[in-house]
Amino acid sequence: MTNFDVVVIGAGLAGLTAAREVRAAGRSVVVLEARDRVAGRNFGGNLADGTPVEMGGQWIGRTQTEVLKLVDELGLKTFPTYADGAAVTLYNGVLTRYADPSFGLSDEGAMEVGRLQQELEALADTVSLSAPWASPSALELDRQTLGEWLRANSAKDEAMAFWGAIVPALFSAEPTEMSLLHFLFYIKSGGMLDNLVSTTGGAQELRVVGGAHRISERLAEELGETVRLNCPVRKISHDDSGVRVGFDGGEVTARRVVVAIPPALAGRLAYEPALPGARDGLTQQMPMGSVIKVQVAYPTPFWRDAGLSGFGFSLDDELSVTMDNSPPDGACGVVVGFFEGAHARSAAGLSPQERRASAVATLVKMFGPEARNPVDYAEQNWMEEEYTRGCYGGRLGAGVWTQYGAALAEPVGRVHWAGAETSDVWNGYMDGAVRSGHRAAAEVLGRLEA
Amino acid sequence: MTNFDVVVIGAGLAGLTAAREVRAAGRSVVVLEARDRVAGRNFGGNLADGTPVEMGGQWIGRTQTEVLKLVDELGLKTFPTYADGAAVTLYNGVLTRYADPSFGLSDEGAMEVGRLQQELEALADTVSLSAPWASPSALELDRQTLGEWLRANSAKDEAMAFWGAIVPALFSAEPTEMSLLHFLFYIKSGGMLDNLVSTTGGAQELRVVGGAHRISERLAEELGETVRLNCPVRKISHDDSGVRVGFDGGEVTARRVVVAIPPALAGRLAYEPALPGARDGLTQQMPMGSVIKVQVAYPTPFWRDAGLSGFGFSLDDELSVTMDNSPPDGACGVVVGFFEGAHARSAAGLSPQERRASAVATLVKMFGPEARNPVDYAEQNWMEEEYTRGCYGGRLGAGVWTQYGAALAEPVGRVHWAGAETSDVWNGYMDGAVRSGHRAAAEVLGRLEA
Repeated sequence: MTNFDVVVIGAGLAGLTAAREVRAAGRSVVVLEARDRVAGRNFGGNLADGTPVEMGGQWIGRTQTEVLKLVDELGLKTFPTYADGAAVTLYNGVLTRYADPSFGLSDEGAMEVGRLQQELEALADTVSLSAPWASPSALELDRQTLGEWLRANSAKDEAMAFWGAIVPALFSAEPTEMSLLHFLFYIKSGGMLDNLVSTTGGAQELRVVGGAHRISERLAEELGETVRLNCPVRKISHDDSGVRVGFDGGEVTARRVVVAIPPALAGRLAYEPALPGARDGLTQQMPMGSVIKVQVAYPTPFWRDAGLSGFGFSLDDELSVTMDNSPPDGACGVVVGFFEGAHARSAAGLSPQERRASAVATLVKMFGPEARNPVDYAEQNWMEEEYTRGCYGGRLGAGVWTQYGAALAEPVGRVHWAGAETSDVWNGYMDGAVRSGHRAAAEVLGRLEA
Repeated sequence: MTNFDVVVIGAGLAGLTAAREVRAAGRSVVVLEARDRVAGRNFGGNLADGTPVEMGGQWIGRTQTEVLKLVDELGLKTFPTYADGAAVTLYNGVLTRYADPSFGLSDEGAMEVGRLQQELEALADTVSLSAPWASPSALELDRQTLGEWLRANSAKDEAMAFWGAIVPALFSAEPTEMSLLHFLFYIKSGGMLDNLVSTTGGAQELRVVGGAHRISERLAEELGETVRLNCPVRKISHDDSGVRVGFDGGEVTARRVVVAIPPALAGRLAYEPALPGARDGLTQQMPMGSVIKVQVAYPTPFWRDAGLSGFGFSLDDELSVTMDNSPPDGACGVVVGFFEGAHARSAAGLSPQERRASAVATLVKMFGPEARNPVDYAEQNWMEEEYTRGCYGGRLGAGVWTQYGAALAEPVGRVHWAGAETSDVWNGYMDGAVRSGHRAAAEVLGRLEA
């Protein structure tokens, strides 16, 4: 069968969710996936001893209601991220242990960070989630980078170091690399900063038993032969009568197409007729973040015995954020850590051995000498992934939202756009991906007769 | 024949220059061009009465020695851009006529612009043309947008209005959309601002008889069957033994490949193996400028009779720069004008009739009521061109040069990069394109035995 009501490009959460709903509505659908696996930016791996670890997106927060609903519908279970005990922060060579939301900053530093956070969130309150470019102060907020705003609004080293590390932790990009408007949109989209950065009570509260990629795998199991792997799409032709989608080795036709891959990758397909300049221009300047995610394994989660949660935050090191990522039964100890933004790009120039040494050196500073001899190390450099080309997602630099934002999710004829980048709620997160799938499915189902 | 020493992708000035030199060295070469014409961002058009007009890049300055040498070698002739008489500037509804380099600014405005220019050029002096990312103050210069620097360094409305119009005139992009480092690199690359903005004595001094696209056409005539039109390349496979280049309808093999298209487009090809993350990341964030070039024709160049050169500069209007673009014999009058940057993006939302009306309204303000009734109008929206996707060229936003710049021209195995964006001298200009062709040809010729 090569003729469908809907063809979906990309078997990540967005595409699979859209396909599921199209099929539930009694319409025929096919999902074309470039890789030999589903789940996109979710990706299950294993340590050498078989312990499953997540090499991509993994956490879910309680306000991420759409992905939680999906998890439940699919019969999957969640469990709380380990977060008992104290966190640690490294700054100027000093390790601070703390059990409050201070991020280990000095009183003065925490006060300055809090002041800036209040100001930023007051600005974020003015941003429209459905049309950021039409917010009352859009031009003013968009012409500045976040870095520019921070430099203009604080001269305190510790606070600036905090923002210089927390922003890459959220975006895998530097404050200079996004507009203030993008930052404000994004934090509002996820319910403001505390929600984004917190484990318990925030976006990192829950994990999925078996790994977050199981969500996509279950969806794909439901969809069966609807999902075709190893089909990198190269071309989309569309006209009044339908769409024709060419991939390596074949072609399908449909009434409508849902492109459920990041804008940076969507721009690389050939379109006939060519896309409007505004849409094409957007895809030229919505780069993906830069991140290398590492898993460092130990015989036991030894930090727990010392009353530590495993949450580490370094304002000094290339590996800037760590969390306890041990399996639910704590049978072994796993720390997950991130090289993000500029750190990821410099760490990409190291050998895996050097990156491991860099990561372990930071863990020793955070968790003591027991961290010195991991039993295993695994890493995932998302910048090298041909069919993702960076995580966590696409961002917009100064000026882009107001010049190109309207093209982000607006269909072009029979071509519809999905993916976490297109969601107004929890943009960039798994929940946003699911929401975008709902929205795209509703779009195509509402127009199939057209 | 499907096997060559070198395959060149793109029959613009860069690619054709490279191909010419490879052939002159006795090596076999093929040029694959996506369009049904050569010359890329140079493009010859005609008014309804047959008068030739240039829809793309057209001017050459006397310090652009490589393209001038090429023009000469190919037996083409240049002629001076018409520049006799006074220029006009519109600002806050007031028309100023002037015959000095003041751009019609008030004394105070000109002094402030001059002060900023001096400061910018002093900063530019510190930038390395061959490796901007390694300049002494690279990080500091790159983390700021040009807009940020301007706002931090001047509070004068008139000066800010000037920069807000002259920057798009040079880049087809707004000051916010590029890093300070990019701006500094670019102006130094072309011999500093006066050189870039001037007609006589600057980058707009000369025109090519028959049009600048004739350079590429002559090169293509020389190269004969070497140049294959209507061959949009889709995939480059490369390994130790050579390269294989797939295009719509065929495939060629070679020892090395020169990719002579803008980075934004080069990133859209499929590569096997996939490109390194740093190179791919660069192509995700080097967007093309936004410009709609218009030609407005009159029975005579009537402004000359009034002692005007045809150079107009508006700080008020969407059509911000005009010049006399009449044929060498002045048989009719043609004004060329530009919608650039944000103006181009908003004007793109108008109908051709509305754009014509907008352009003509500005010309009436500049040149009087005789401008009200043109006999013809032609326009070229470069954002809609599938195989260019914006002019004049690619630019780098805040942070990108220092994070990704090293990947701009560095070969990846047997894959070499050319194009105006990769030149350290006259970057973004025809001269830079020719220089990049020389450089890429030298690279591949030096490594053909490898």
